[in-house]
Amino acid sequence: MATLQAIKYNDGHLEILDQLLLPESCVYIPINNVQDAWGAIREMKVRGAPAIAIVGSLSLAVELRKLATPETKKDLHSLVKEKLDYLVTSRPTAVNMQLAAEACIKLSNNLVDKDSVHAAEAKDVVVKHLEATLANDIADNLAIGEHGATDITKKCGNKDQLRIMTHCNTGSLATAGYGTALGVIRSLHKANLLDQVYCTETRPYNQGSRLTAFELVYEKIPATLICDNMAAAAMKQFKIDAVIVGADRVAANGDTANKIGTYQLAVLAKSHNILFYVAAPFSSIDFQIPTGQSIPIEERPHSEMTHTGNIRTAAAGIHCWNPGFDVTPAELITGGIVTEKGVFKPDQLEQHD
Amino acid sequence: MATLQAIKYNDGHLEILDQLLLPESCVYIPINNVQDAWGAIREMKVRGAPAIAIVGSLSLAVELRKLATPETKKDLHSLVKEKLDYLVTSRPTAVNMQLAAEACIKLSNNLVDKDSVHAAEAKDVVVKHLEATLANDIADNLAIGEHGATDITKKCGNKDQLRIMTHCNTGSLATAGYGTALGVIRSLHKANLLDQVYCTETRPYNQGSRLTAFELVYEKIPATLICDNMAAAAMKQFKIDAVIVGADRVAANGDTANKIGTYQLAVLAKSHNILFYVAAPFSSIDFQIPTGQSIPIEERPHSEMTHTGNIRTAAAGIHCWNPGFDVTPAELITGGIVTEKGVFKPDQLEQHD
Repeated sequence: MATLQAIKYNDGHLEILDQLLLPESCVYIPINNVQDAWGAIREMKVRGAPAIAIVGSLSLAVELRKLATPETKKDLHSLVKEKLDYLVTSRPTAVNMQLAAEACIKLSNNLVDKDSVHAAEAKDVVVKHLEATLANDIADNLAIGEHGATDITKKCGNKDQLRIMTHCNTGSLATAGYGTALGVIRSLHKANLLDQVYCTETRPYNQGSRLTAFELVYEKIPATLICDNMAAAAMKQFKIDAVIVGADRVAANGDTANKIGTYQLAVLAKSHNILFYVAAPFSSIDFQIPTGQSIPIEERPHSEMTHTGNIRTAAAGIHCWNPGFDVTPAELITGGIVTEKGVFKPDQLEQHD
Repeated sequence: MATLQAIKYNDGHLEILDQLLLPESCVYIPINNVQDAWGAIREMKVRGAPAIAIVGSLSLAVELRKLATPETKKDLHSLVKEKLDYLVTSRPTAVNMQLAAEACIKLSNNLVDKDSVHAAEAKDVVVKHLEATLANDIADNLAIGEHGATDITKKCGNKDQLRIMTHCNTGSLATAGYGTALGVIRSLHKANLLDQVYCTETRPYNQGSRLTAFELVYEKIPATLICDNMAAAAMKQFKIDAVIVGADRVAANGDTANKIGTYQLAVLAKSHNILFYVAAPFSSIDFQIPTGQSIPIEERPHSEMTHTGNIRTAAAGIHCWNPGFDVTPAELITGGIVTEKGVFKPDQLEQHD
């Protein structure tokens, strides 16, 4: 069965699946420029650290393709830098967009100094670089899936009926396709090693119940939805083998910022002697940041917690705390960090930079 | 400020606040007989183990008051037994209704054997017994509040700015008034010892965000609402001093069945070195049950997890697991079990039966 496609790009035309309308309806919306992408990322029509970087990058490719070639490469560079700096401001916690922006700005800056390259060629190189993010991400995810599935199976004594818990959405809807943590689950399923996935609702935005559950039903992967407060009871009752989650940003020491609730699952996994894995492409690792303490945590609007659509689900006047993410200390990541280059203990990351 | 009244009883007239309509609107509905009470309990218009027992008992008082005196005390006894057995079937996990039923059945049975008592008098004794549940519960809760507040303060080194986390609703809306765990919080607040309460949303039924938050706002108690997956992050960030929850049923060894998510909070509290308390009247302790393993756990409809009102919040076709309760092992109840008779270590309960 084909995996769900959340980002469609073809020859300068970009469309994304509006995830705010899921699971009720599947509607694709056009992204015609960087401004559209910024809005879609901010409003969470697209979400997930890798997908944010890809949609941001592709939106600049769309804009550059339509644009007359700038007079000089310096003009091109200023434009590229300005647009990418703007895109980075859409969501502060995920590092992928920032790393993608830095790489592209470096590339266009290098082109300025290359006398042999004309402005038109430079524009072409930048566009191709931006467009390549899509295929690269899918290739990385397939590798993550394989490495993760192999490692979990090995560490669970080659058991062939694995029960895996996951949080938030890290699948086709959060990446270019296939997914990170959900990619590992897809690989286990393909290899007939999966008994059941337990996916958490992931309040307050319900990425688990709306998006992950949607992908799992779509691909007929055996799955059970639980509320976030049922995780420990499920670990105990169903004898979960491993928890696997994605990452918005991993610090150099392995501390991992991910969707709020991840830290809690890691503590619970440790208490129940369950392996805990983070799955993320190397682009999610920020070697500039030594530990998780320096990762900025976005606070999100209280209305996410007090309302579902127009329905009030919390008493009027109650004060809310709504952090979008939390930081899981490296020592709780007992299974390892699954990347496209292999599975590493958190303290081994820096050797592989 | 007056505490919220969820159960109004006066001279054979019973009304309850329809909690399904909270926090949008405050509507009282009449309960004219046992059948009405059974429905209101089943549909969760009234909830919380103590409140269920009180509404059940009062509904029988309402019915008996309207009824012509049965010809014989045996007829009275059959009727009382039949009605109470029926009420016990409304929600299986809470023990309070069952214990209340057993006590009343025993009373009416004893009256059968007392030759000096006529049928009319016997009916009167049973009605008075049923009606007394309301005042008794409030008195018990006030005692629980005082004992709990004193114990927490002492164990926290007489700190006067306590940060307390609670789960579900254990307040005026779950009891006859004042509350169990929320009663302890009310007592701390009255004594100016409370910095902040953190209350969990309590998915899927949102008793925390709808009901506890409503009570806290109503009484201007400083409070912050969190989602269930934010508990560990909040414990760490805000340096919570103690977690206090209610109980649906406590086994003889102290194992406690309470709203799903309680077990998880207890594990997290232990990992963060935070005191964990259960607050419950002695009537919630079931000395017939040696450990929590024998407590039946009610599974509730999947629609609670997949929809909020008419809004679908989970992908169509996803399988759900929706246990209403979980069991917290006694060893995780590190603060103690707060009752109207005092605060006990779980293994001391049986000495005080």
